[in-house]
Amino acid sequence: MRNKPRLRVGLVGAGFMGRCHANAFRSAGGIFDLPAEIDLEMLADADEALAEKNARELGFKRSTGDWRKLAADPDIGVVAITAPNSLHEPIAMLAIDNGKPVYCEKPLAVDGEAAKRMTAAAEKANATTLVGFNFLSNPLIVLARDLVESGEIGDVTCFRGRHAEDYMSSGDSPHTFRTDPAGGGALADLGSHIIAMARYLVGPIIEVSGHLKTIHPMRPASEGSRNQMPVEVDDVAYSHVRFDSGAVGFIEANWAASGKTMDLSFEITGSNGSIVFTQERMNELRVWRRRQSRRLNGYTLIEAGPEHPPYGRFCPAPGHQLGFNDLKVIEVSRLIRAIVESGDAFPDFREAYRIQLAVDAIRRSSRERRWTEVSA
Amino acid sequence: MRNKPRLRVGLVGAGFMGRCHANAFRSAGGIFDLPAEIDLEMLADADEALAEKNARELGFKRSTGDWRKLAADPDIGVVAITAPNSLHEPIAMLAIDNGKPVYCEKPLAVDGEAAKRMTAAAEKANATTLVGFNFLSNPLIVLARDLVESGEIGDVTCFRGRHAEDYMSSGDSPHTFRTDPAGGGALADLGSHIIAMARYLVGPIIEVSGHLKTIHPMRPASEGSRNQMPVEVDDVAYSHVRFDSGAVGFIEANWAASGKTMDLSFEITGSNGSIVFTQERMNELRVWRRRQSRRLNGYTLIEAGPEHPPYGRFCPAPGHQLGFNDLKVIEVSRLIRAIVESGDAFPDFREAYRIQLAVDAIRRSSRERRWTEVSA
Amino acid sequence: MRNKPRLRVGLVGAGFMGRCHANAFRSAGGIFDLPAEIDLEMLADADEALAEKNARELGFKRSTGDWRKLAADPDIGVVAITAPNSLHEPIAMLAIDNGKPVYCEKPLAVDGEAAKRMTAAAEKANATTLVGFNFLSNPLIVLARDLVESGEIGDVTCFRGRHAEDYMSSGDSPHTFRTDPAGGGALADLGSHIIAMARYLVGPIIEVSGHLKTIHPMRPASEGSRNQMPVEVDDVAYSHVRFDSGAVGFIEANWAASGKTMDLSFEITGSNGSIVFTQERMNELRVWRRRQSRRLNGYTLIEAGPEHPPYGRFCPAPGHQLGFNDLKVIEVSRLIRAIVESGDAFPDFREAYRIQLAVDAIRRSSRERRWTEVSA
Amino acid sequence: MRNKPRLRVGLVGAGFMGRCHANAFRSAGGIFDLPAEIDLEMLADADEALAEKNARELGFKRSTGDWRKLAADPDIGVVAITAPNSLHEPIAMLAIDNGKPVYCEKPLAVDGEAAKRMTAAAEKANATTLVGFNFLSNPLIVLARDLVESGEIGDVTCFRGRHAEDYMSSGDSPHTFRTDPAGGGALADLGSHIIAMARYLVGPIIEVSGHLKTIHPMRPASEGSRNQMPVEVDDVAYSHVRFDSGAVGFIEANWAASGKTMDLSFEITGSNGSIVFTQERMNELRVWRRRQSRRLNGYTLIEAGPEHPPYGRFCPAPGHQLGFNDLKVIEVSRLIRAIVESGDAFPDFREAYRIQLAVDAIRRSSRERRWTEVSA
Repeated sequence: MRNKPRLRVGLVGAGFMGRCHANAFRSAGGIFDLPAEIDLEMLADADEALAEKNARELGFKRSTGDWRKLAADPDIGVVAITAPNSLHEPIAMLAIDNGKPVYCEKPLAVDGEAAKRMTAAAEKANATTLVGFNFLSNPLIVLARDLVESGEIGDVTCFRGRHAEDYMSSGDSPHTFRTDPAGGGALADLGSHIIAMARYLVGPIIEVSGHLKTIHPMRPASEGSRNQMPVEVDDVAYSHVRFDSGAVGFIEANWAASGKTMDLSFEITGSNGSIVFTQERMNELRVWRRRQSRRLNGYTLIEAGPEHPPYGRFCPAPGHQLGFNDLKVIEVSRLIRAIVESGDAFPDFREAYRIQLAVDAIRRSSRERRWTEVSA
Repeated sequence: MRNKPRLRVGLVGAGFMGRCHANAFRSAGGIFDLPAEIDLEMLADADEALAEKNARELGFKRSTGDWRKLAADPDIGVVAITAPNSLHEPIAMLAIDNGKPVYCEKPLAVDGEAAKRMTAAAEKANATTLVGFNFLSNPLIVLARDLVESGEIGDVTCFRGRHAEDYMSSGDSPHTFRTDPAGGGALADLGSHIIAMARYLVGPIIEVSGHLKTIHPMRPASEGSRNQMPVEVDDVAYSHVRFDSGAVGFIEANWAASGKTMDLSFEITGSNGSIVFTQERMNELRVWRRRQSRRLNGYTLIEAGPEHPPYGRFCPAPGHQLGFNDLKVIEVSRLIRAIVESGDAFPDFREAYRIQLAVDAIRRSSRERRWTEVSA
Repeated sequence: MRNKPRLRVGLVGAGFMGRCHANAFRSAGGIFDLPAEIDLEMLADADEALAEKNARELGFKRSTGDWRKLAADPDIGVVAITAPNSLHEPIAMLAIDNGKPVYCEKPLAVDGEAAKRMTAAAEKANATTLVGFNFLSNPLIVLARDLVESGEIGDVTCFRGRHAEDYMSSGDSPHTFRTDPAGGGALADLGSHIIAMARYLVGPIIEVSGHLKTIHPMRPASEGSRNQMPVEVDDVAYSHVRFDSGAVGFIEANWAASGKTMDLSFEITGSNGSIVFTQERMNELRVWRRRQSRRLNGYTLIEAGPEHPPYGRFCPAPGHQLGFNDLKVIEVSRLIRAIVESGDAFPDFREAYRIQLAVDAIRRSSRERRWTEVSA
Repeated sequence: MRNKPRLRVGLVGAGFMGRCHANAFRSAGGIFDLPAEIDLEMLADADEALAEKNARELGFKRSTGDWRKLAADPDIGVVAITAPNSLHEPIAMLAIDNGKPVYCEKPLAVDGEAAKRMTAAAEKANATTLVGFNFLSNPLIVLARDLVESGEIGDVTCFRGRHAEDYMSSGDSPHTFRTDPAGGGALADLGSHIIAMARYLVGPIIEVSGHLKTIHPMRPASEGSRNQMPVEVDDVAYSHVRFDSGAVGFIEANWAASGKTMDLSFEITGSNGSIVFTQERMNELRVWRRRQSRRLNGYTLIEAGPEHPPYGRFCPAPGHQLGFNDLKVIEVSRLIRAIVESGDAFPDFREAYRIQLAVDAIRRSSRERRWTEVSA
């Protein structure tokens, strides 16, 4: 039996996504046969008391109120970032400076410039990086990509995608970090997920024509506040997209989609077939392939199962349903393999930077009311 | 018992839509208590033998190879047009000249100019007109409109619609009248349906930004032909749309949507609810309305039933499913009432003209790659 | 062109099903190329004024208050019966005596003995008969049967079927003809449909073990009445069934199934596949066939289309949805062909009699609380 | 901050369910604020090398080839049993003798007698026990029960349930422990889940009339073997059921249901509503409640969310999907609370014993072909 190295995790951010990361790191070793032993080593949060309390609850050995200590700590083998978006850059930069792999929640940065700096630093340092577009880790999304790549649906002609939720659909939903002009809005928050999906499945987007709309121009300053403050970000964003491959499509980001809870969905159309998915039924993929006759043909509903790796690590039989948190476990397992073995993870900082460039182009395109190329 | 007038139908076109019209006229009197007795009086088709044969099969008393005779026949009380699109104008014009109501299949005309002339003529003559956007006759679409108008979903903020089928998805599907540069393309053929729906449910569209794409630039000249001819029309059309009401949205017309057979579908989002529909399940409407809590809330699947008039004319119990042809029967019954009673039908030539203006604007917008106002 | 004979329809019963029959006879000739011209000749109803009024509305030439006149009229070519169940036998008997084909609504009779007499009389007279189990006319049900017969799902091992609606789910729903001890109850009313389906798809049922339950032992004597009267029939009926083929299964009839409007549904399981259907989505059939791997396999949703005859008579493209009334049109077209051409229709009186025997056996089995053979 | 006690877990069985237990114990503390610190203390498996290997992988401190050592170890605070069914009794008995809480996979025992002995021993020792009917831990199942208990759907009249999968649908699927006459068969393996569900939601079952069928009377002795051996257990089991409450229903257990992967599903019908669920979409519950009118009424699709505790412990927003393994985490958290706080867990040995009694009654009923009371 080989002797596995220990990988000591330093996590910045003790909020919800912090717990989600911690739980994924806790679980991953039981699900996967990982090339390292995982230790929950240190938890950092600006709220030092919270850091201490959560460290105890989540099983971290140490805690700190200063992320700088964590990012520079020589024992830390990977820095996971779930801190507010504006802190992603300084934390990642310090971690990279200290030679550490970085696992960062999306969006990578508040704008394309920051993302570019972070990418450059990571590549210069040859650092392993991974950004938390966790929906790509779904075994059925991997299957969808395999189908596209192997030509099962012919040439991809159209992509129709959206990420729609409704947590901001009421005008009473107050300002939060999400509505911060630096990096906020439905397009940045949700649109980045569907852009990541589009790129993963169909390839680079080269030109866009966006249309952003602020549905509620005023929102309460905080929950229940009677103080209404103007909103500068989009509640809904639409965009035509042109892919490098020649495919066309459009995407939508919408956080005011009343009734929708997690409609990260798409339809990929090919010359000989199509693939339909929504995250609301993340264990199902619908696939149609052209046949001689329609007599016995139609969309086939494929249920996630052991033939869609790594589903079988969670359960040996189909029909047992993966959950959202399992996607994070898969993501973490890929991170760990990359750190210990290959060095390369996906989507890395560069990929997240490209996603950010598409976000920026759509925003600019909408402002200028014209088609806009996506910088490469 | 009142003595009902007789209404003698003259139908131009003995193809599939002609049969569909004839059957609807045959059935309408048994389903509805109409204000007139319907006679299938005359069937016209350029193919005189076909006209004669089909007249006999469908129960018309007379047939002719010359639509001019039909449109000018003094006994004819309504002229129904299912002839090729390029003939809509001359037939309708002659019928109007002869003081007859006109029932015309969509699209009304090959372009906006023709539609404008037809509308002007009809309005000058005070003729009853109806254009066959039959999907609007679905009782559940009427319910959707009632919900929007009564404020059940709050203010409408977004409309997401499409009409996707796949009869042209293969590059082997040949040229037909549908690919004729005069009036053809997915946008004209299918997009007009979803634009009609958008206008009916959300109101006038004032500005568009379209993106049309020809997926198969060459198609066989005819079924099975090895002679490939260039295609000048769109296989898929996307468009951002801005409504007069302030709502935003986008629409898609797609006849290359592999796997889709009748996805005339939409999602209307309001500040307090949403409505979801697809023609593929035309007896179902999904409605979500905001509640205090999500504990017992979600989309409610409303099945068509007697509480959605005129469903009860077809069946006294819910769950019995209306079919596509029933929509045509409803449309015809509205036509007959309009002719005998009110004079006004919907969607009339003016409405069809406005739909055509939106089609034209989207096409122009795509060509010029910029936002374009829809003429009023 | 051949000269088609005329077939003059005599219809007994001017209620809802009467209208449904009349409309089907009106429409059939426009949809199908029938071997006869159909005339709506005479309408009979015990309420003579209603007969006269409806005859006019529906297009019958004559009307009568006495079904005997109709059944004996020498011009009548087929007698259609939608009268109350207790009249089915005398009407059919007189029609058969007069050498006429008979088209009878289900249930054929109030009990097995009556059904047996009717069957014997019809067979002795060599009369064409058809009983209105219209759901069997669905093109997708025909497809399901083809799949079973051709071995596409292997040997049928299990059948799970039900017909559930909720029109009697409330205890306030009053007594009607449906709760009449002679021939009433959920099993007779709805169960006969699912038994017909089971027999059509899987073959003869040879043994049953039923469990009937009266959920509301008292119901108002009539709509809104405060006079509560005891109920002697079942609101829900379950039964184990054993088929002649060796397959096993169970069926349910339920008119108190709160929320269900038309759940005439089944799952046929075979050793190599399965077929799933519900009348609530009558244009969809789900089929699963065993494959080497589940990677790309699952239930395929087949939409009704032209490749499922006679769908194409209604519409040349898939996705356009047949409705309930269209099934009646198909049924009528089969009736007319049988009368003019083959002589044999299905399901005929004998088949309806066998269905009745299964109903009787389930009822007896429940009363005696033991397995009971179905008489042959 | 309170000082939490440590709870040391001893797990018997290193197979799939063993991993599942281990992972649930690992994760539970990160998800829930538990009243104890969980230590993975010892793993036992008859295969000592496997025990050692898996202990290392899963994070157990110690391993053993002898479950007796584990069950008697003074440091062990709870014994979890995922060993073969025939070992459940001796392991549980020894653990109880040593004063330990027991967490046992279903089925509790190979027959009712064994279950009775285990229940008696546990109750005499006042031991906390929990049996792994994990599907009951679904927040939406808890909601369903709340709806039933609070009268939201009126009086429950009918229960229609099944657990259908297809892992034994092929005759090539070989004998395993599942086909062992002692405790095997679809009814014992799957039927126990739907019986547990029925009891949880509707209450005690007092009488049954079962119908068991062996579809494949011979199966290979082992995977790929040409040696065919007879099968003595059922592939499919149906049963009528009568509840103590007066409700009626039927259930099905089927491991030969071609195409089904996890159709643990039910429909609860009440006098004023109904509830529909399938584990294949475990994050969705469909609820119908009677309204004045059907105009806006129908089944409401409720998605699991934070308003359905303890969903919020996994994710703060709706739409994020719990998975199968999350149900095990919830189950474990209830176990730990019961051990540390209340002492009582559900479903405990007594409940599992009652489930076993229903299984036994159905089996006996089928053999004797008559209604059979369920012993109390």
